[in-house]
Amino acid sequence: MKHTRLEEQLGFILEVDKLKEIFRQTHCTQSRRPENDAEHSWHLCLAAIVLAEHANEPRLDVLRVLKMLILHDLVEIDAGDTFAYDTARMAGQHEREARAADRIFGMLPGDQAAEFRALWDEFEERRTPESRFAAAIDRYQPCLLNCNTGGAAWKRHGVTVDRVLARNSPIAEGSAALWEETSRMIRKAVETGDLDPAP
Amino acid sequence: MKHTRLEEQLGFILEVDKLKEIFRQTHCTQSRRPENDAEHSWHLCLAAIVLAEHANEPRLDVLRVLKMLILHDLVEIDAGDTFAYDTARMAGQHEREARAADRIFGMLPGDQAAEFRALWDEFEERRTPESRFAAAIDRYQPCLLNCNTGGAAWKRHGVTVDRVLARNSPIAEGSAALWEETSRMIRKAVETGDLDPAP
Repeated sequence: MKHTRLEEQLGFILEVDKLKEIFRQTHCTQSRRPENDAEHSWHLCLAAIVLAEHANEPRLDVLRVLKMLILHDLVEIDAGDTFAYDTARMAGQHEREARAADRIFGMLPGDQAAEFRALWDEFEERRTPESRFAAAIDRYQPCLLNCNTGGAAWKRHGVTVDRVLARNSPIAEGSAALWEETSRMIRKAVETGDLDPAP
Repeated sequence: MKHTRLEEQLGFILEVDKLKEIFRQTHCTQSRRPENDAEHSWHLCLAAIVLAEHANEPRLDVLRVLKMLILHDLVEIDAGDTFAYDTARMAGQHEREARAADRIFGMLPGDQAAEFRALWDEFEERRTPESRFAAAIDRYQPCLLNCNTGGAAWKRHGVTVDRVLARNSPIAEGSAALWEETSRMIRKAVETGDLDPAP
């Protein structure tokens, strides 16, 4: 049976419900349970509309930022979450995720599949002001949660401050002001014992 | 100590992490656990960018739709989730939520607090094409989850098809095409036994 355009789109919307079951290393601040990709993606969208004025690029296309943030983790439905400090597993990450993008965005009508795939590629490549700002938010938010859950994910994986600063310094490419706050928050986490000093 | 504009905004972003602990009556399709407001809000944003072309209004401001969907449930951090078919509890709902909006949006710098409050009011009033489309998505998505979890929330509360059709018919004000699909899906749920016929 041939599906209409709308039926294909509704099939996609049902499929991506699976994102709610992809769990991350960061914990939610209240219950301290692991956060999932769907609620993480919402939190990034919220942060983006609050913080857009602090982007390095004053004429940011906020709609494109939001589309990237809504879509950026869908590939993890097939590829799983890769912890940012797991260097071994990060090796094959892009290939796994590109295959996932083919399948998942491929459920949509051709023009929309191409649009969403281009948005995902843009986010991954970080060459536009919008993708740099989106990526900055995507790094800031896990730091915020870690700093408010006793450094749970960092401690569990033995991550030290030098690695956290190195991983998150690209925030400055999207928002210098946000990086200033984030680096201050990270250094404070060392003082409070939530993050281990460099070895 | 006086907080800078950015510090106020970051305090707000941390506060709204609480939305991840507000649980709804609908279940996620995979794990069948209750869905929370944060992942629900993400799912609506995703559905909105996929389905915007089906809005009754052809020149829809999709950015404003997304902002409303990102923000629409924040009031439930204080007011709690009100099940759409719980008529007794729905009586005081707007008052509870308006107080919550005062407190939560009030954490932001004044201009942004006013902008977000206006977006929330717009969503609640459903008088613009953007808010009608956003509200349509907000009704469609729980139907989609119910129809793919054996009608779990409907059955638990003894909700019958007449009430489901009445509750969701305003979808047509945002998107006639989406309402056509939704009403078909609802009627199919009666055939499969996931939704009880009218008493």
